[in-house]
Amino acid sequence: MSQARIGLIGLGVMGANLSLNIADNGFPVAVYNRTSSVTDEFVASSGDLADKLSPAHTLEALVASLTTPRAVIIMVAAGAVDAVIDELKPHLDKGDMIIDAGNANFHDTRRREAALKNDGLNFIGMGVSGGEEGARFGPSIMAGGDIASFEVIRDILEAISAKHNGQPCADHFGPDGAGHFVKTVHNGIEYADMQMIAEVYGLLRDGDKRPTAEIGKLFEAWDQGPLNSYLIEISGKVLQAVDEKTGNPLVDMIVDKAGQKGTGRWTAIEALSLGQSPSTIEAAVAGRSWSSEKETREAGEAIFADIQPQAGAETLSDADLEKALLAAKIIAYDQGIKLLAAASEEYKWDLDLASCAEVWRAGCIIRSALLDDMASAVREGLPHTQLIFAPRFAQIIREGSSALRRVVASAALRGLPTPAFSNALAYFDTMRMGRGTTDLIQGQRDFFGAHSFERTDGGKGHHGPWASDVAHSAALTD
Amino acid sequence: MSQARIGLIGLGVMGANLSLNIADNGFPVAVYNRTSSVTDEFVASSGDLADKLSPAHTLEALVASLTTPRAVIIMVAAGAVDAVIDELKPHLDKGDMIIDAGNANFHDTRRREAALKNDGLNFIGMGVSGGEEGARFGPSIMAGGDIASFEVIRDILEAISAKHNGQPCADHFGPDGAGHFVKTVHNGIEYADMQMIAEVYGLLRDGDKRPTAEIGKLFEAWDQGPLNSYLIEISGKVLQAVDEKTGNPLVDMIVDKAGQKGTGRWTAIEALSLGQSPSTIEAAVAGRSWSSEKETREAGEAIFADIQPQAGAETLSDADLEKALLAAKIIAYDQGIKLLAAASEEYKWDLDLASCAEVWRAGCIIRSALLDDMASAVREGLPHTQLIFAPRFAQIIREGSSALRRVVASAALRGLPTPAFSNALAYFDTMRMGRGTTDLIQGQRDFFGAHSFERTDGGKGHHGPWASDVAHSAALTD
Repeated sequence: MSQARIGLIGLGVMGANLSLNIADNGFPVAVYNRTSSVTDEFVASSGDLADKLSPAHTLEALVASLTTPRAVIIMVAAGAVDAVIDELKPHLDKGDMIIDAGNANFHDTRRREAALKNDGLNFIGMGVSGGEEGARFGPSIMAGGDIASFEVIRDILEAISAKHNGQPCADHFGPDGAGHFVKTVHNGIEYADMQMIAEVYGLLRDGDKRPTAEIGKLFEAWDQGPLNSYLIEISGKVLQAVDEKTGNPLVDMIVDKAGQKGTGRWTAIEALSLGQSPSTIEAAVAGRSWSSEKETREAGEAIFADIQPQAGAETLSDADLEKALLAAKIIAYDQGIKLLAAASEEYKWDLDLASCAEVWRAGCIIRSALLDDMASAVREGLPHTQLIFAPRFAQIIREGSSALRRVVASAALRGLPTPAFSNALAYFDTMRMGRGTTDLIQGQRDFFGAHSFERTDGGKGHHGPWASDVAHSAALTD
Repeated sequence: MSQARIGLIGLGVMGANLSLNIADNGFPVAVYNRTSSVTDEFVASSGDLADKLSPAHTLEALVASLTTPRAVIIMVAAGAVDAVIDELKPHLDKGDMIIDAGNANFHDTRRREAALKNDGLNFIGMGVSGGEEGARFGPSIMAGGDIASFEVIRDILEAISAKHNGQPCADHFGPDGAGHFVKTVHNGIEYADMQMIAEVYGLLRDGDKRPTAEIGKLFEAWDQGPLNSYLIEISGKVLQAVDEKTGNPLVDMIVDKAGQKGTGRWTAIEALSLGQSPSTIEAAVAGRSWSSEKETREAGEAIFADIQPQAGAETLSDADLEKALLAAKIIAYDQGIKLLAAASEEYKWDLDLASCAEVWRAGCIIRSALLDDMASAVREGLPHTQLIFAPRFAQIIREGSSALRRVVASAALRGLPTPAFSNALAYFDTMRMGRGTTDLIQGQRDFFGAHSFERTDGGKGHHGPWASDVAHSAALTD
């Protein structure tokens, strides 16, 4: 077998499927797993693709089997990345590249890139979305780091990536951590998407007492309309799945404690650090976090068993829910895109925001019909970096906002939590209000802390009549 | 003049007032400012208190004028703390202490304490709340760090602190950054308090078109009831203040772009890092952040000028608003206290949560009648660390939740943003729901990422029928 164009370390589910995908696209790939038997079994079970897979039992052998400059993908648990890099490094030569295809925190990616640069090695931090299926047949690929290195392997990445109308869903977004950051925000948006779907499910299940499978059918129907997306599709399937053991809807047998691997939380933390508040993502992170406190919620249910929220709330039509979900979803993407723009400015990545939306159109978990339109809108230029201000989306929001209002109001009156929906609405109503209410907050801050305020008729540094004789030149605590 | 018990560096507004407070309580205090003329003018203008104030023109002189072990308070801008410590350190002896009384990030406090310990010096990170007035006549003091050092100056801190029924609002909360963390959460709660007040103001101003001064009168009236608090009191005053120049309500002349010095944002970031989601604080941080985007909001107002939210929404009575504000406020404090508990566990501070509420009863910005009851409830022990589950507060929430629902619903229908109110309600409704909706999210996660789920009839690690033949042993991305 000829030398391989690329190597891959870590044959877990993602690494194994990514290797098969690369081989399937005609590129010889050298594969390595810490446990050699895993490597051998993987190659042995790969059928026709085995002749493109070159098993290596040592890192030295892996590296020796690669063309130069060498490119080695690492696909291991986040906690193991540094150790693998340290082991691999001595076998590489200047100009070789390491590609971290796991879900890294972009700060780690920045640190690793800087450290490897000192050794003359190039580093690509590469977010890969699409789960197992995506890894095997076409994921969405978000890369960052050394652009010259990326160009060396661009043909491979484009070949293995998902395609949207023939366009590969793989791109390079900027230096150092840009790719992993785009992937992080992708996941944050994914959290918001999933939370909003769960809120609709809750309104139908607990508010309207609709049978689970019927709710699944509704999602299935919505998947044929403007909400068409992978997450709506699988929600329909999950809700219609039947538990073999009991014959109940499977979802009724699943404990409502959501796990999180941290990327949604990272998104929220990084956003705050950048002065951003993507409140729909914050709500989704909150929803998962609170779900883990099941004992507390059960205690709360007992304590407040006597509360019977008003039954008189308006009933919502399925069309109301569909429109509200569409509007709220667009608002979540608005917040995500704004966050990408803020990060790009802070880290000087010069991110192509339209390209972000473009690589999300296929392969990844948040792929949807909407993303095509979003990519076009971003490509045309967003007024004030606001997706909701782009004419085509402003129109959808305009039409859906009334439904969104009724959903939030009805949920509040009926005692059904819809944190992501209500945060979407509050954000929208805030961003369409030229004069908000923080004039009072500025007055309060000046009152207790002499923080001063700006006047509407000009000039900063003003104080109210409550200012004492003490000089207010210095900023105070609180 | 005899040697001083304590020294203070930094005669800005807070440092100057804190020095006068210390002197006023009979303790000789040595004062130093980088610019000597500031020091001299300060002492010269301090009237009867001058004989307790010992001006120092060098750090050496400052240190020489102190009894041992020496205690030096630093009250400078956060960015200058490290430099001042470096300058001061060489003049101190082992066993002396430095007290940082500024608004430090508790991570910095942890770092500084560890570094100074290596030099044999003790460090106290001390949050001080109450603004200028508090610093002069009695702030709330939240200290952390070396307990033996704290005991040396406890008499001074208790003497200068605010008193609640004769009890000093000053305490030591635990090692390293505990004090500054308690102060940070104090500020986070303060943000939520202020945001909720601003939301009520918005409902009255924009929803009901009530004259500003009348809204101020309403706050003044509420200050006599269960909402009695410093922030309600000053809101009444701010709203009734008249602009001398125009004769308009002053608040109408204040630009609605809220500043923030970062403590609210720190609270939200630290909370997320601890797996917590204090959503009312997140909403308040968001409210301030979005307020700064005034041009964007003005553009949004123009784009969506045609949206006329439903006018048919129920009118809210003043009593509804009062009850809703009370309930939402309690929920915000619930989230803040839960955050303190989570931090205490993570950092092994063994925080006395009741004492946190106790030192907030007077002197600080969030002081209120409610805090006395809260402190008692925490002292009695909170079921599941939930303030809203404590019988006396569960009762208020029970009575207020219906008003809170109507406020959130009415605001949503009328197009008035109430992010903190709606987040408070969503949290409450989540925490009283034994079965939430993340069972669907767990199903989705298993579907696309083979993350597995726990079954209600026992056992973790289950997969749905959608699981492919590929082994699902490894955790996947997304």
